[in-house]
Amino acid sequence: MSIATESTVQPSRRTGSTSDAAAATVGGADLKLYESVRQKIEGLIAQGTLRPGDKVPSVRKLSEQLGVSVSTVLQAYRLLEDLGKIKAKPQSGYYVSTRLWQPPAEPEISSPKVRSTPVAVNDLVLEVFAATRHPDIVPLGAAIPGPDTLPIRKLNRMLGSVLRRSPTLGSEYDMPPGSEALRVQIARRALDTGCTLSPDQIMTTVGAQEAIGLCLRAVAKAGDTIAIESPSYYGILQLIETLGMKALEIPTHPRDGVSIEALRLALDETRVKACLFVPNYQNPLGCVMPDANKKELVELLAEREIPLIEDDIYGDLGFAGERPKVCKAFDTKGLVLLCSSYSKTLAAGYRVGWCVPGRFAAEVTRLKLVTTLATPSLPQRAVAEFLASGGYDHHLRAVRRTYQQQVERMQDAVCEFFPAETRATRPAGGFVLWVELPEKVDALTLHRQALDERISIAPGPIFSAKQRYRHFVRLNCAVPWSNDIERAMRTLGRLINDQLK
Amino acid sequence: MSIATESTVQPSRRTGSTSDAAAATVGGADLKLYESVRQKIEGLIAQGTLRPGDKVPSVRKLSEQLGVSVSTVLQAYRLLEDLGKIKAKPQSGYYVSTRLWQPPAEPEISSPKVRSTPVAVNDLVLEVFAATRHPDIVPLGAAIPGPDTLPIRKLNRMLGSVLRRSPTLGSEYDMPPGSEALRVQIARRALDTGCTLSPDQIMTTVGAQEAIGLCLRAVAKAGDTIAIESPSYYGILQLIETLGMKALEIPTHPRDGVSIEALRLALDETRVKACLFVPNYQNPLGCVMPDANKKELVELLAEREIPLIEDDIYGDLGFAGERPKVCKAFDTKGLVLLCSSYSKTLAAGYRVGWCVPGRFAAEVTRLKLVTTLATPSLPQRAVAEFLASGGYDHHLRAVRRTYQQQVERMQDAVCEFFPAETRATRPAGGFVLWVELPEKVDALTLHRQALDERISIAPGPIFSAKQRYRHFVRLNCAVPWSNDIERAMRTLGRLINDQLK
Repeated sequence: MSIATESTVQPSRRTGSTSDAAAATVGGADLKLYESVRQKIEGLIAQGTLRPGDKVPSVRKLSEQLGVSVSTVLQAYRLLEDLGKIKAKPQSGYYVSTRLWQPPAEPEISSPKVRSTPVAVNDLVLEVFAATRHPDIVPLGAAIPGPDTLPIRKLNRMLGSVLRRSPTLGSEYDMPPGSEALRVQIARRALDTGCTLSPDQIMTTVGAQEAIGLCLRAVAKAGDTIAIESPSYYGILQLIETLGMKALEIPTHPRDGVSIEALRLALDETRVKACLFVPNYQNPLGCVMPDANKKELVELLAEREIPLIEDDIYGDLGFAGERPKVCKAFDTKGLVLLCSSYSKTLAAGYRVGWCVPGRFAAEVTRLKLVTTLATPSLPQRAVAEFLASGGYDHHLRAVRRTYQQQVERMQDAVCEFFPAETRATRPAGGFVLWVELPEKVDALTLHRQALDERISIAPGPIFSAKQRYRHFVRLNCAVPWSNDIERAMRTLGRLINDQLK
Repeated sequence: MSIATESTVQPSRRTGSTSDAAAATVGGADLKLYESVRQKIEGLIAQGTLRPGDKVPSVRKLSEQLGVSVSTVLQAYRLLEDLGKIKAKPQSGYYVSTRLWQPPAEPEISSPKVRSTPVAVNDLVLEVFAATRHPDIVPLGAAIPGPDTLPIRKLNRMLGSVLRRSPTLGSEYDMPPGSEALRVQIARRALDTGCTLSPDQIMTTVGAQEAIGLCLRAVAKAGDTIAIESPSYYGILQLIETLGMKALEIPTHPRDGVSIEALRLALDETRVKACLFVPNYQNPLGCVMPDANKKELVELLAEREIPLIEDDIYGDLGFAGERPKVCKAFDTKGLVLLCSSYSKTLAAGYRVGWCVPGRFAAEVTRLKLVTTLATPSLPQRAVAEFLASGGYDHHLRAVRRTYQQQVERMQDAVCEFFPAETRATRPAGGFVLWVELPEKVDALTLHRQALDERISIAPGPIFSAKQRYRHFVRLNCAVPWSNDIERAMRTLGRLINDQLK
């Protein structure tokens, strides 16, 4: 962990630390000095000298006051940040957290009787999607990037220039594995995720949704059990439901992702045909599985010859630190089927996704042919052009900052308008916030009431095969903050409080 | 049937006549006069005065010679054409057929024991598709339009102009049912096919392949039996195989399409969950089901509440006469799921398809969301623009003529290079030719030998769930005739003759 100077302090990337385990990350340094810093700040908070949202003393100032080194204070601050007491703001410093984070209680491991669940996500998902078609509905439901956040003008200009150079492009089927120009770019970028891939190992798809569907159908069939995170993206749950498969929800920590230990126990008890996880910036939790866990996960599954479908759609959208690795980086047996897309980073409507299906390549190709035959040519070429131009990294730096700020703005609004018992995740990337409301609140009722007020939210139960999370909601933070959103959050707060009366 | 003058004589559209039944279509006119014309021409052919490829006497001349009216001669010529003795060439007149057509023996109705067949189309299909990726392979395999045949430059220019007017288009998911601009155009054009549709009844898809897959999954599940034509497009067979369904092959006439009588018998004996037919310019036969048969088919299925998935992908590509109706035009119960695309008429690589799922709309939408979530935005908008511009009909007139000429050129090459016993279809539209080789020829061996010579063909067995048609091949005629294709046909002829030695 490099030491940042105070003026450019950034939230530290969490590499395996959780509230309980945070002390362990401090390593061999002098714990007493840390404790003095910690007690000082916690005391100031307890006394009310520092209140939620206030700036805490600068690292330099506290270092002078307490007579400890700058790096000790900095490490202490990071510990406090890990504990959820304070929060770093880019280019600014540390502030007292507006709400102290406690991870929501983890789902329990399923008891043998109800081990695997036939998925039955209901038509709520349709409603959440349908809302995106109405421009007058405030879009806090579906995880959809704001149009101004994406470099769509530049991408479209590149498509225009591709068309001028290749005026007959698009007449022929771009048969699987798809555009070579794009696959070369994907292979190059994969180096940053710890993977050495050849373009031949990659197949392009119509978004990540098609990629995941093809991979799932290649490794499992109706009746099979698929281990997933809990909560999980409803698109994945619906896919499992549609294919007649069963979901096994594995306890998932809102910071570190799926619990390897819980998974190991589940595998001992249940015949799991495949795992389908989102290790980086999981939707809806925003958590990142530490690279060490990824390695352990891949090894655990390799021992048992269980395929892992890895959805890395948010992997490029971390708020701080290095680009996390993918599980595929640790795959030596071709058992990891890596899937991703550019829907969250470049253009959702382009529908350009891809997968690296490992040893299942032949079957995935066969399924691709019968599902959509070929991926549309022009969007692939435009994305390849964008990636080759070098503009992608520049864009990512900007968009990560934007999403982080918008997530924080949303957290602040949760603090301001929602009841005091409300909890919210601290996403390390992506652009959604997972919010635990007071237990008495019914998220489905809230969803309906909100829609009546022209506000779309994603109610918690659609994130669980077992309809858990009845008092949770997911909020999309990818649309730039506006008066409309502020009004919507105020309205949601009122509706929630009304339910508590 | 309107009377054409000699100089603009066109092949008549066949409305239900077959070789056996042709006499019946003559109606109440004087059969003796017809017979005199017929005997005259058949005599000239039998004597060798007129040889294959020779022009027959003009209608006017024969009318004078025999002292019968021009319209009688014309009707007699049409009868002879229906019998396959002579062939009309646009703008030119009638010629002695280079090969006398006899429809291949129809597949028999399956015996009860092997009634429904689990489909197992093998990896040959992958090879046929894979060949399209190599520009040095002569592309007589996959049914792929030649790039110069399609108005791709104009379409791409329209995409460019869409982008200039809407520079942020493509940033957002174009959620199902998809682009309204496109659905409005599809609904307008549907009037020509006998359908009155509202844009709301239409959903856009990633090509017809996705449309058919979604519709099939909406009406049937693994283990169910689907009635299909025999032979059938391998993409449909593979889809049925992949979904774990069974195929019931229904006898299909190379002129009139699926036999309603055979289907009725099959329905009495087998529990058929759905039918999946290509009533207009079927692939590989090129046949058209007469509108009366379509009506009868829809009524038969309506009585039994059996859904019909109708693939109309070639419907706009008839060689002569009016645009045929679709079965959907006769659907009063929402049981017909109409599917189509612009892959064969505008741009295969755009992947713009659509379906009208009738009463199954909700389920098809649900499946669309988990399969590809949304159809790419830009290709849809460009196609909508093209359709709205009015250029589509103009383009169709040109492309129909081109395809007809190319199909005829291919028929001539079959006559010239293939053994005398070879038979070939007389497609009424589309751009493929279905060729029956001498029985001793093995199409799979031919396929392999041809690939060694850098020629791709589609071997017959991939068009049947039961691997029938072992001595058939399908030839793609959509690529403009060239020396390469002529050489390829000569080579195929040599390979076939070698097999007969």
